[in-house]
Amino acid sequence: MFAYMLDYNVPGGKLNRGLSVLDSYKLLQEGRELTENEIFLASALGWCIEWLQAYFLVLDDIMDNSHTRRGQPCWFRVPKVGMIAVNDGIILRNHIPRILRNHFREKKYYVDLVDLFNEVEFQTASGQMIDLITTIEGEKDLSKYSLNLHRRIVQYKTAYYSFYLSVACALLMSGEKLENHLDVKNILIDMGIYFQVQDDYLDCFGDPKVIGKIGTDIEDFKCSWLVVKALELCNDEQKKLLYENYGKEDPACVAKVKELYNELNVQGIFEEYESQSYEKLVNSIEVHPSKAVQAVLKSFLAKIYKREK
Amino acid sequence: MFAYMLDYNVPGGKLNRGLSVLDSYKLLQEGRELTENEIFLASALGWCIEWLQAYFLVLDDIMDNSHTRRGQPCWFRVPKVGMIAVNDGIILRNHIPRILRNHFREKKYYVDLVDLFNEVEFQTASGQMIDLITTIEGEKDLSKYSLNLHRRIVQYKTAYYSFYLSVACALLMSGEKLENHLDVKNILIDMGIYFQVQDDYLDCFGDPKVIGKIGTDIEDFKCSWLVVKALELCNDEQKKLLYENYGKEDPACVAKVKELYNELNVQGIFEEYESQSYEKLVNSIEVHPSKAVQAVLKSFLAKIYKREK
Repeated sequence: MFAYMLDYNVPGGKLNRGLSVLDSYKLLQEGRELTENEIFLASALGWCIEWLQAYFLVLDDIMDNSHTRRGQPCWFRVPKVGMIAVNDGIILRNHIPRILRNHFREKKYYVDLVDLFNEVEFQTASGQMIDLITTIEGEKDLSKYSLNLHRRIVQYKTAYYSFYLSVACALLMSGEKLENHLDVKNILIDMGIYFQVQDDYLDCFGDPKVIGKIGTDIEDFKCSWLVVKALELCNDEQKKLLYENYGKEDPACVAKVKELYNELNVQGIFEEYESQSYEKLVNSIEVHPSKAVQAVLKSFLAKIYKREK
Repeated sequence: MFAYMLDYNVPGGKLNRGLSVLDSYKLLQEGRELTENEIFLASALGWCIEWLQAYFLVLDDIMDNSHTRRGQPCWFRVPKVGMIAVNDGIILRNHIPRILRNHFREKKYYVDLVDLFNEVEFQTASGQMIDLITTIEGEKDLSKYSLNLHRRIVQYKTAYYSFYLSVACALLMSGEKLENHLDVKNILIDMGIYFQVQDDYLDCFGDPKVIGKIGTDIEDFKCSWLVVKALELCNDEQKKLLYENYGKEDPACVAKVKELYNELNVQGIFEEYESQSYEKLVNSIEVHPSKAVQAVLKSFLAKIYKREK
C-alpha cells in the first residue's frame, strides 16, 4: 500500500529539480571527478526535493479539487484513497528528515540542511496560502490582482523550492555557508519568477501537444501574469469585458479573454519581458565573483530560456 | 485570517501536553528555582507540542469527516475555509521548526530537539496511516481487529506525541541524551496505551456530561479496546451478533453491542486491566535509578489513574 503510494506519486515528473542538485554540485567542484559517495549524497538530496514536490502536489490537488496530474488521476481520486491522501502527503514529507538523518547526521552542515528544508517548506506553504486566499470561491475579485501580488505568490509558492533549494543543497555539500550567498538566492528567485511567467504564458499560448496539458488558468480565475498585464494595459471598456469574462467555465467567455489578450498584444509584451529578463539575469550572474557559481546559474538559465514546454 | 485560524485551532484543549514540559522540567531540576528564561523555553516547547496537536487535529478531522471539535465546528467546516484547511494545518506545523530555530538555535541540544519533533511527527502519521487503512470505508472487517493491532495504532498515533514528547523535551533541556533514556520512553509509551484504553472505555461507559462528548466508537467501527476484548471473549453466537451490529449508525445496533459488552462483563475486565496496568507501571517506575525521573513519571501516572474524563 505504502509502496504503491510512492510509485504513484513520486516519479512521473521530469525530475529536473532532483537532478539539478548533482548537476550543480558537479559544477561547483570545477571538473574534479566526484567520488561515488558524493554522487550518492547529491542524489539523495535530489530525491528529497522530489519527495517534497510530491507532497505539495498531492495536497495541492486536494485543495484545488484537480482531476489529473502527470497524465493520471490525482492520488486522492484513486478509489479507496480519498481523504487518506492527506495523511499520505504527510508521510511523504516525513521521509525527508529521515533521509537527511540517515545520510547526513554526521556532516558539519546537517543542521543547516534540516533548517533549509524547513525554511523552504514554510515559504512554499505561505505562497500556497496567499494563492488560496486570493482565489477563494465566491470572492472572485480582479481588482486584487497586480504584478506585486503575482510576484509574491510565485516567489513563495514556486521559486524557493523549484530553483533555490537544489543550488542551496549543492552549496551546503560544498562546505559553503548559505548566508554568504544571498546574491545567488536572489538571482534564483528572479529566475523562478521568470520561469513562472513562462508557465503562465504557455498555459494560454503554448501548444497543448508540446506542454502535455490544456491550460485552464482563465477558467480557474488564476492570478496569471497575462491577466495582470492585461489589467495594466486595458482601457475602461476592455476592463469591463475582462471583469465579466475572466474565471468563467463558458468557452465563449474564455475566447473573449483570449481575444482581448491578442488585442492588447500580450504576446509581444511577453516576448519583450522574456528578453529583458534574460539580459538582466545574465548581467547579475556575470558580476558574481565565482566562476563556478556563475556556471551553475548559467546552466539553470540555459535550461529555461525560450522554453516551449 | 491567519490569526483567526490560530485562535480557532490552537487553544481550547486542556493544554495538558503543553504544560507538562514545564512540570517535568521542574521536577527534573529537583526543586531548584527556575530562571525566567528556563520557564520561557520550557513553555515555548510546550506550545510547540500544542501546535503539533492542532495540526494533527485539523487534518484528522478532514480525514475522518468529523463535525465538531472542542465544542465548535471543525475548522474545515467553517465557511470559506473548506479544503484550505489542509494548508492551514501545514502552516501550523511549519511554525514548530521556526519556534525551535528562533529560541534554541544556539543550544547544544538543538539538533536533537529538531530530530525529536521530526521523529514523533513521523510516528504519529504512521499510526494514523495504520488506523485509516484498517477502517477504510467498504472494507469493514472485524477479523482484522486484535489487541496487537490496537496496541500498534495507539502506540504510534497517540503515545509518542501525547506522553513521550513532553518528557523528552524536558530531558533535552536538562542536558540529557535521549538514547540513555529508552526505559523512560518505554514506560511513557505503556502509559499512553493505558490512557487510550481508558479513552476507549469512557467513550462507551463514561458520563457524556463529564467527558464533554457523546462517544461514537461503535458507530464508527473503531478499533477500540472494548471491541477487541469482546472479540477475545465471545462465543460463536455472540461473535455473529458483533459482526452484524458493529459499525452501524442504527441506535438499535449500537444498543445490541453495548448489551453484549455488559453480558461479557467488559467493564469488570477493564477495571482489572486498570489496576494491573497501574501496578505494572508503578513497578517499572520504582526501579528507575533517578528519583527525579521517578517523580516525573509518577506525576504523569497520578494525572490519569482512574480518571473519569
